[in-house]
Amino acid sequence: MQDPSFVPHSDYEEYPVAEMKERASEFYQNIKRRRTVRDFSERPVPKEIIENCLLAAGTAPNGANKQPWHFVAVSDPEIKKKIRIEAEKEEHEFYNRRAPEDWLEDLQPFGTDEKKPFLEKAPYLIGIFAQNYNLDEDGNKEKHYYVKESVGIATGILITALHE
Amino acid sequence: MQDPSFVPHSDYEEYPVAEMKERASEFYQNIKRRRTVRDFSERPVPKEIIENCLLAAGTAPNGANKQPWHFVAVSDPEIKKKIRIEAEKEEHEFYNRRAPEDWLEDLQPFGTDEKKPFLEKAPYLIGIFAQNYNLDEDGNKEKHYYVKESVGIATGILITALHE
Repeated sequence: MQDPSFVPHSDYEEYPVAEMKERASEFYQNIKRRRTVRDFSERPVPKEIIENCLLAAGTAPNGANKQPWHFVAVSDPEIKKKIRIEAEKEEHEFYNRRAPEDWLEDLQPFGTDEKKPFLEKAPYLIGIFAQNYNLDEDGNKEKHYYVKESVGIATGILITALHE
Repeated sequence: MQDPSFVPHSDYEEYPVAEMKERASEFYQNIKRRRTVRDFSERPVPKEIIENCLLAAGTAPNGANKQPWHFVAVSDPEIKKKIRIEAEKEEHEFYNRRAPEDWLEDLQPFGTDEKKPFLEKAPYLIGIFAQNYNLDEDGNKEKHYYVKESVGIATGILITALHE
């Protein structure tokens, strides 16, 4: 194994301990206000905000830096409508046939069902795709590593960015 | 399906559009300074900072709110040493026997190998465990859902908190 070549972490910013404490506490106080929302305002969101949040997600650490994700932001009402229709078909199957009884019981406190009107109402939908492998120019599969973990971390950063 | 009972999102804070834009851009500029670090300072870190970052991670959205994670923060030098020894045994296996050639090639740019001295040097190690199921008091398995995705999102928030 070759010796690694180190690069200085020149962008590192260190805060005095008291400020570090303060920042950690503030971050927690802020993020704990986040809720999982299923009813949205229709007020438009500037595209550059979505773009910056997706750029932030793309900085996530990930397996061998393969960045095994693909994000799709949708604002077109026609496409959002199609997504809602297809999602509701799937969810109908899930709630009426596919889900075992104990899963449905676990979901009951949330009052969720197959209806997803918010998929049309929210100004943007962000589809998050995990890429289990890449295809190179010749159509050969290139491996990706720790895909679900990597995409999960990117999604955690995305959620934090959107909440901020 | 019962009608969901809605709660007001009273903690929601809305910023004027110009400020939203500014915050999204600042968040990206800040998080993109993050690097994956494999050589650490030994300066101590106050425990309450680690605690607040873990509390932040625990606010992550997750499958049916089962919170299928377990975080362990280790600062005891003896335990860190044991973790290093066991990790290096595993990594020795990986780099010398288990990893296929193409995986090793993909790792080469990072110069990583089986040596993990940073596991002793860093003031805190945070072990992140995914819980595929829970055992209730009678030892029955309770299902967890979207475990890797949920733990990934929590880890993304944790990384962001530590970076902050």
